[in-house]
Amino acid sequence: MRDFSQGVAQLSLNTATLRKQLDLPGIVEACARRGIRTICPWRDQVAAAGLHNVARQLAQTGIGLSGYCRGGFFPAADTAGLRAALDDNRRAVDEAKTLGAPCLVLVAGALPGALSGPPAHKDIGLARAQVVAGISATLDYARNVGLPLAIEPLHPMQAADRACVNTTEHALDICDALDPDRTGALGVAIDVYHTWWDPKLAGQIARAGRDRLLAYHVCDWLLPTRDLLNDRGMMGDGIVELQKIRSWVEAAGYAGPAEVEIFSERWWRVPAADVLDVCVARYNTVV
Amino acid sequence: MRDFSQGVAQLSLNTATLRKQLDLPGIVEACARRGIRTICPWRDQVAAAGLHNVARQLAQTGIGLSGYCRGGFFPAADTAGLRAALDDNRRAVDEAKTLGAPCLVLVAGALPGALSGPPAHKDIGLARAQVVAGISATLDYARNVGLPLAIEPLHPMQAADRACVNTTEHALDICDALDPDRTGALGVAIDVYHTWWDPKLAGQIARAGRDRLLAYHVCDWLLPTRDLLNDRGMMGDGIVELQKIRSWVEAAGYAGPAEVEIFSERWWRVPAADVLDVCVARYNTVV
Repeated sequence: MRDFSQGVAQLSLNTATLRKQLDLPGIVEACARRGIRTICPWRDQVAAAGLHNVARQLAQTGIGLSGYCRGGFFPAADTAGLRAALDDNRRAVDEAKTLGAPCLVLVAGALPGALSGPPAHKDIGLARAQVVAGISATLDYARNVGLPLAIEPLHPMQAADRACVNTTEHALDICDALDPDRTGALGVAIDVYHTWWDPKLAGQIARAGRDRLLAYHVCDWLLPTRDLLNDRGMMGDGIVELQKIRSWVEAAGYAGPAEVEIFSERWWRVPAADVLDVCVARYNTVV
Repeated sequence: MRDFSQGVAQLSLNTATLRKQLDLPGIVEACARRGIRTICPWRDQVAAAGLHNVARQLAQTGIGLSGYCRGGFFPAADTAGLRAALDDNRRAVDEAKTLGAPCLVLVAGALPGALSGPPAHKDIGLARAQVVAGISATLDYARNVGLPLAIEPLHPMQAADRACVNTTEHALDICDALDPDRTGALGVAIDVYHTWWDPKLAGQIARAGRDRLLAYHVCDWLLPTRDLLNDRGMMGDGIVELQKIRSWVEAAGYAGPAEVEIFSERWWRVPAADVLDVCVARYNTVV
């Protein structure tokens, strides 16, 4: 296993971690000051700062990307909604390419409308079929652009409203269906928060292999967890066996960064520089 | 599919649903008044009322059981703890037999100590091995007593503190390992709250078959869900495809009750008779 005890060479910061303290240019500056060379920005943060401004700042600071968050949300209640989702995903692919991201992370989406009120229907099987169709169409476009897509299975507690792809096995089944030749154009993003509980995780990481392990995200699962979205823990504060899972990922051939992604009301209240110091300290000791 | 639109012949009440309104004798009375002929009581409620008092009241009212909640919690930090769990499970088997329950529901347990503070360790693989050993030992005893054990996979959001068996597939793998001849001594309890999200659910219910489908629990998944334990929804208030899942269960041969189990701070504030009226109305229309 790679030695993470010194420096931050393999630390990437998912910029949601500091979304309430700083705008994206501020986050990039803070990372540069702390020596962090890799980030994964969110589309809304990029849009607020301006795509080309962000690209310029990344070039100036020498900061690279571990991915781009996020495409997906394919299911919709009608044809117009399905088409709008595909259009939006093509734009996300283009943005990712402009920023030099190695992949676009896909959060599948789930029951249409569920994030903002009562969903249009309850048929998760239909949503899953729309997800496969949406990834398939986006993959055609992304292949031409040369931008890999990383399906991120989300925790089953987010199956109704955020992503109806909830296990690594399910994500890899979709990869097998849409990219049977393992061209590298389609893979998975493994986030320990979403996947640590899965008894099949080790086997599915091995199944994914180097071709399909496109991103690796870390944080921790707190006991108790008080919110289904915004109560992620800092690495080491919870019960995830971080080094065990990283050993599986690396044994399967993954050689990219460990991306720190912490959605947390408590960490959003801490000054950005302090959050980064803790991220680095935990990266050096428990990741 | 069976017709649930009239009466309550296949409605069972899990007594946790009214645990804050009434003691167990009060719940039995309320069910008898409402015409509900089947319940699934909890051990702590039985202990508070006295095992033999409960048995007598059930006989007098003609109310039967759909199961007994609950055995399990096998993992422990040391040998003494493991032994204490086995002793406790044998007592649970005996109580279930005394009350005439058709099965003892097993909630596996997870990281030792996690329900009351920091766990003794983070090794979920070890906890899972202890669960299999614990079920195996308890099964030897339960076979002699003639009391089937029903492994209940819990939602993955409860994997760290309540049950490290989180999918129907995992539960059935344990059944295959410990009861390969499908004797009926070991099976599963399918609760829609814990399992609705699983893309493999239909297939695993078919795999379980009549021999291993020992209990079927209903409630609903609310959007948004505000608590990881006590925010279950009344049937029809959430997004679970109740009739679709029941069709799978019945197609696989299950002919027992649909057990209503609602852990809900909001429903615990409603008078018991009103809760039962709503349960019956929803049972007749959406279950």
